[in-house]
Amino acid sequence: MTQSVPETFKGFGVDKKENWNKPKLVEYKHKQINPHDIVLENEACGLCYSDIHTLQSNWGPYNRNDLVVGHEIVGKVIAVGSAVTQFKVGQRVGIGAGNSACRECGRCNHDNEQYCKKMAGTYNNVDPRSNGYVTQGGYSSHSIADEQFAFAIPESLPSTAAAPLMCAGITVFSPLIRNLGKDAKGKTVGIIGIGGLGHLAVQFANALGAKVVAFSRSSAKKEQALKLGAHEFVATGEEKDWTSKYDDEFDFILNCASGIDGLNLSDYLSVLKVDSKFISVGLPPAKEQFGVSPFTFLKNGVAFGSSLLGSKTEVTEMLRLAAENDIKPWIEEVPISEENCSKALERCVAGDVRYRFVFTEFDKAFN
Amino acid sequence: MTQSVPETFKGFGVDKKENWNKPKLVEYKHKQINPHDIVLENEACGLCYSDIHTLQSNWGPYNRNDLVVGHEIVGKVIAVGSAVTQFKVGQRVGIGAGNSACRECGRCNHDNEQYCKKMAGTYNNVDPRSNGYVTQGGYSSHSIADEQFAFAIPESLPSTAAAPLMCAGITVFSPLIRNLGKDAKGKTVGIIGIGGLGHLAVQFANALGAKVVAFSRSSAKKEQALKLGAHEFVATGEEKDWTSKYDDEFDFILNCASGIDGLNLSDYLSVLKVDSKFISVGLPPAKEQFGVSPFTFLKNGVAFGSSLLGSKTEVTEMLRLAAENDIKPWIEEVPISEENCSKALERCVAGDVRYRFVFTEFDKAFN
Repeated sequence: MTQSVPETFKGFGVDKKENWNKPKLVEYKHKQINPHDIVLENEACGLCYSDIHTLQSNWGPYNRNDLVVGHEIVGKVIAVGSAVTQFKVGQRVGIGAGNSACRECGRCNHDNEQYCKKMAGTYNNVDPRSNGYVTQGGYSSHSIADEQFAFAIPESLPSTAAAPLMCAGITVFSPLIRNLGKDAKGKTVGIIGIGGLGHLAVQFANALGAKVVAFSRSSAKKEQALKLGAHEFVATGEEKDWTSKYDDEFDFILNCASGIDGLNLSDYLSVLKVDSKFISVGLPPAKEQFGVSPFTFLKNGVAFGSSLLGSKTEVTEMLRLAAENDIKPWIEEVPISEENCSKALERCVAGDVRYRFVFTEFDKAFN
Repeated sequence: MTQSVPETFKGFGVDKKENWNKPKLVEYKHKQINPHDIVLENEACGLCYSDIHTLQSNWGPYNRNDLVVGHEIVGKVIAVGSAVTQFKVGQRVGIGAGNSACRECGRCNHDNEQYCKKMAGTYNNVDPRSNGYVTQGGYSSHSIADEQFAFAIPESLPSTAAAPLMCAGITVFSPLIRNLGKDAKGKTVGIIGIGGLGHLAVQFANALGAKVVAFSRSSAKKEQALKLGAHEFVATGEEKDWTSKYDDEFDFILNCASGIDGLNLSDYLSVLKVDSKFISVGLPPAKEQFGVSPFTFLKNGVAFGSSLLGSKTEVTEMLRLAAENDIKPWIEEVPISEENCSKALERCVAGDVRYRFVFTEFDKAFN
């Protein structure tokens, strides 16, 4: 350790789902620092809808009663483990929703470490490499992560702009380049839902060279979508025959809406090209399902799937592209505190955010 | 026309779903012979489960009351339309489930004519290119199809062996080569359901060079599956922890079971490699659905889809591979007649077939 790491970290934690919107200042022992781990002093953290799903127990139970969420973290390295090769103390680094993995399996060794079956997530996850420590997120003073799950932030990206790229950004960027390639010229992509995920997807799809069609239920976000880089905009609730206009046009459709409830899957599948995919990255509560049959996919030979985060290689490529093309999330900065965490969580649930809250002023809150 | 085509054709037709298992000898006017059409005198026709779904109205209503099914047809060309370039009178030719398409769209011109949005199926389909004629299938004396949906049968394949390849064969072959490539060495594929579709999928997947794992509920078909070319066999109802044995092993899984009812989708998705697909070609009644959520696909970033038939290019490649590797359906020949159609349909519903009925002796039935 090149700098002393405090024995305990501080954060804004919640004890149970009934208090999902009432984070309190908590103090907790940090997880052990493994040889490949780095320790950050946090500077900024985005509010991801996953934070709310977790705090509301939509995806499962609490694994600790001082649960700190947040996995769009940017901070400064204050210590590195004995085997760390990629980072130095003082560097500005981001951490996303993945925290560590086995480093040994085929997935870890072939640019799919986010799919490692032993990956530990950044919060509320039991870390098998730290004696079962339940991980704590970034609404906190410090963070620890394996260097494979930490990313150098380009100079030109402010920490507040980089933070939402750590989860929302890579969540949309990975399926975009896996399905469109790095040069998407001549291809058409549909982005459903202009929110925290979608407003980044539109920017990245545009930067990759694709023709971008943004889908939203109403035309309320039309101007914003076009400003973000969408070439066309469809208000599905207002244009009843939009599918005939886009017959056989789409090489790929990315669903960034927060759920699939009320989404007419058949309409979207009908405008896909043969053999292409509809990928949903918006994750609803685990119990929400919708019915499909092979017939749903038969007419175009298409497939429905999902995608989880992205590899370090992809995060690096995303950050390069963002820096070069001035791609930034549209954010509202919120000085972190009990009161402001509460307000931001509530406003996010109400849909009252364009498009991402980013907590700031960590030094004031935790010193 | 180089030979006179009879004004009416004969076949074994059904008037309504209550009589699905009671085909009667019927006579009907044939559809108009368009410039690209060829006319066959039928020699053999396989019984596909689609015939039963159609006769039982599982997929929709009857479009005529003398409905003749059957879309695994082999016969001899007796006449060709004025613009036909690929076939001559006297040639042995197969026709599958597709009958004609628009010949103009991108799909028709890029090896995806089976996905043409104006394709007419071989039976019970309204043909927009023949004044709305409702097409009639191959339990009949003659067939008419566009030459793009007709396939020259290699010398070495008997008509009875070639017939089931026209639908069952290409239905499994197309997704296999689209997902594994023509050289599948080093790849592992799972084939679910050893029946009319699955027993061909095992043979083709083996011929493409893949490691083939056959899945069935019980071990009743184990020996047969291994004989067909499966390298390994899993009785999912008897081996409770088969998923751990095959962790991260599969490049592709093809579901050939007749439905999805009782099929544990999550188990199969859990053994797929990252970014791969589970494709279901067994088509259940249209109302049967199963519930999925993006979470179902999240852990491996996989997708669920379907696939429809295959292009002419793919059928040609399949027939070449079948001839070279002596790939043949396991069939039971049935001289076509009212009584035998009835028995075969009933035995097929009862699962009493290993693995395909093929109707023969058309000359006796229709002369």
